[in-house]
Amino acid sequence: TLPKDILNAVLNPCIQKDNPKVVDTVIVTDMGTAGKMVMCRCWRSKKFPHCDGSHAQHNKDSGDNVGPLIIKI
Amino acid sequence: TLPKDILNAVLNPCIQKDNPKVVDTVIVTDMGTAGKMVMCRCWRSKKFPHCDGSHAQHNKDSGDNVGPLIIKI
Ligand code: FES
Ligand code: FES
Repeated sequence: TLPKDILNAVLNPCIQKDNPKVVDTVIVTDMGTAGKMVMCRCWRSKKFPHCDGSHAQHNKDSGDNVGPLIIKI
Repeated sequence: TLPKDILNAVLNPCIQKDNPKVVDTVIVTDMGTAGKMVMCRCWRSKKFPHCDGSHAQHNKDSGDNVGPLIIKI
């Protein structure tokens, strides 16, 4: 088993910290002509819930291997 | 600014640790009759990339406030 400091790490340092659970919804019919949406799973994006590429810096700083979820029509 | 141990926390303790960047894709046309998909952003789900509710235990253990991304047709 992994050390507790990894298992209990706070994933989200900044986003909506007064909201007890940050849930976002993508309505596919609202995607319009965008054939693709890239959604953040690193909690570091300045465009959250969209990915802005910040996962790359996070992975570099921490040795992590996280990346986005892509939604394709 | 936040402490480095939070900013540099490893978000993903277990999933595909030999993959340098875990990216998943949801193809909307493959969703079939499922009107909704719930996708994990806590890296704790046993059904990753799908949410299995594990974010609740993670939030409780860590004081975090993460939750899934919902895709709705
Ligand atoms: S910026 Fe968070 S996954 Fe890309
Ligand atoms: S299990 Fe990870 S967000 Fe729900």
